Amino acid sequence: MRATVMYGAGDVRVENVPDTRLVEPTDALVRVTRAAICGGDIWPYNQMQPSETGQRMGHEFIGIVAAIGADVRTVKAGDVVIAPDAWSDGTCVFCREGLHTSCLHGGWWASDGIDGGQGEGVRVPEADGTLVILPVGRDDALMPSLLTLSDVMGTGHHAALAAEVGPGKTVPVVGDGAVGLCGVIAAKRLRAERIILLGSHPARIALAKEFGATDIVSERGDEAVERVRELTSGFGAHSVLECVGHEQSTVTALSIARPGGAVGRVGLPQRESIPTALATFFKNVTVSGGPAPARAYIEELLPDVLEGRIQPGRVFDRVTNLDGVPDGYRAMNEREAIKVLIEF
Amino acid sequence: MRATVMYGAGDVRVENVPDTRLVEPTDALVRVTRAAICGGDIWPYNQMQPSETGQRMGHEFIGIVAAIGADVRTVKAGDVVIAPDAWSDGTCVFCREGLHTSCLHGGWWASDGIDGGQGEGVRVPEADGTLVILPVGRDDALMPSLLTLSDVMGTGHHAALAAEVGPGKTVPVVGDGAVGLCGVIAAKRLRAERIILLGSHPARIALAKEFGATDIVSERGDEAVERVRELTSGFGAHSVLECVGHEQSTVTALSIARPGGAVGRVGLPQRESIPTALATFFKNVTVSGGPAPARAYIEELLPDVLEGRIQPGRVFDRVTNLDGVPDGYRAMNEREAIKVLIEF
Repeated sequence: MRATVMYGAGDVRVENVPDTRLVEPTDALVRVTRAAICGGDIWPYNQMQPSETGQRMGHEFIGIVAAIGADVRTVKAGDVVIAPDAWSDGTCVFCREGLHTSCLHGGWWASDGIDGGQGEGVRVPEADGTLVILPVGRDDALMPSLLTLSDVMGTGHHAALAAEVGPGKTVPVVGDGAVGLCGVIAAKRLRAERIILLGSHPARIALAKEFGATDIVSERGDEAVERVRELTSGFGAHSVLECVGHEQSTVTALSIARPGGAVGRVGLPQRESIPTALATFFKNVTVSGGPAPARAYIEELLPDVLEGRIQPGRVFDRVTNLDGVPDGYRAMNEREAIKVLIEF
Repeated sequence: MRATVMYGAGDVRVENVPDTRLVEPTDALVRVTRAAICGGDIWPYNQMQPSETGQRMGHEFIGIVAAIGADVRTVKAGDVVIAPDAWSDGTCVFCREGLHTSCLHGGWWASDGIDGGQGEGVRVPEADGTLVILPVGRDDALMPSLLTLSDVMGTGHHAALAAEVGPGKTVPVVGDGAVGLCGVIAAKRLRAERIILLGSHPARIALAKEFGATDIVSERGDEAVERVRELTSGFGAHSVLECVGHEQSTVTALSIARPGGAVGRVGLPQRESIPTALATFFKNVTVSGGPAPARAYIEELLPDVLEGRIQPGRVFDRVTNLDGVPDGYRAMNEREAIKVLIEF
């Protein structure tokens, strides 16, 4: 079969890889119908050291079950299924607590011999725990929005929960990428009163406004902090979503949090330490978040997608086929595209 | 009047200072009857640069109201009152949210011309918001425990709330100082199932056990982390109280948190950044806490002290008078005393 392999910074190839096959009795084989390129894939696209063997890519996909192992009970061949950002058994102590990314028997796509999502087929371990059956056909018009439930929409939702978004709250969202835009959707859905997008890209700002952003701050650094303070009576904001992971964006997020507020961080941290800890301490600001347990949120968010109340699929502003994946990486890296959908 | 003044590391003096007097109509004058030396006072005792003018000290005291300003309504001369770690108006937006340490019109003792608690008298700004009347006489046997409500017991409680302590939780408490010991009391009071004290001082360990600690870890660094992992089925703990503020204790606290767990930090951070942010991120660990809004907790904790359900006053293992304060600092610095009570 064909799949996406990264060999180093800027070097993404689509090539032949071994066909997937069932290994464990709890496996399912999924023929991928749609996948996505994630903002997180752009980090190695900029930084990966050259590798001779390469790195399979992709962790967001929807597909059709092609075969199941002997112990699989909940999905069957022909089902249209969505896979979350990590695979998980659904039964361990962490899965039961809703933290599927820490599943005792789970793991990440495209590592440890598991296929990535940006390819024609994926062996899905712990299929009963991992996969969620979709009640629509493979080419339903809702597919882009459904695909976001595999990661990016769940990540925005996770940031909003970590930041304790709720009715009446003022919610700055740091970052106008696909995660930040989904964070706007999540904040609106959780009834934030005011949503301030910190971003500068005109098309993304326009989309954020349609998603519910009430204010836009396009300045950066200290100026951005000052602008948010002006917008919040000088106090800062209750709930801040950090959707980038850079040092500067993290400092901004912590700085605009109100005393007693919370920062939900989902941007992959690019530094080992959390900056401005002392100021954060004196303000009693809570820092929470991490990789989103997207699996935990699919059932909650799915009805809103199916009934059209949220349209996170609008973050996809480019569609390509598998051959177009390398150019999709380039386009996202150059901020030419917000997020790229891959159709098979 | 006489009061404690620090002139540099190791240089604490008791000397004459100007008598207190009413300045604002919202002030009260309090004649101090009992005060305490705080672990936080030991930081400048080790690090303060020499100062010609000196620094007044103390932020934990109980006393008798000697006079009130024209606008004071809730306290009157003769009342026995407790003062929390910060003064606050009790009416601003942050006070109403229970974060009195961020009061818009409040501040800290022993700074900006306000007296410290380790002296004969204190001008208390915003007296109606700051002071709580105690329903006991000035020399009641409960005075040591009541005095802890001014800061140290409230701080242990704050750490426990920030760490989301609750029934069934396993709660490591990092640090066997007075705050850590009060953290043990707070964790027990909030019905933690298991309380692991990380400390090595025999007398403090004995007291921690009486307060409710079920396990003791006396190792440090990686060995301490390993021991807590062993005690928690390899997972780490739900709720961790960081009651020291050192880099090593913070790393330990973050390392022993279970995925999805929370670290409540109340130890004054000795570093500007929070370490191990990446590991903390991947585990979805929440970091919360800061200076305790002790004022917010007095009403909640007071009945437990008055009815003898908690005895935080046992952290005082030395009593002195004002003249003995310099030696009290020395004794706490050398870990000869857990916490020193000053009687006037």
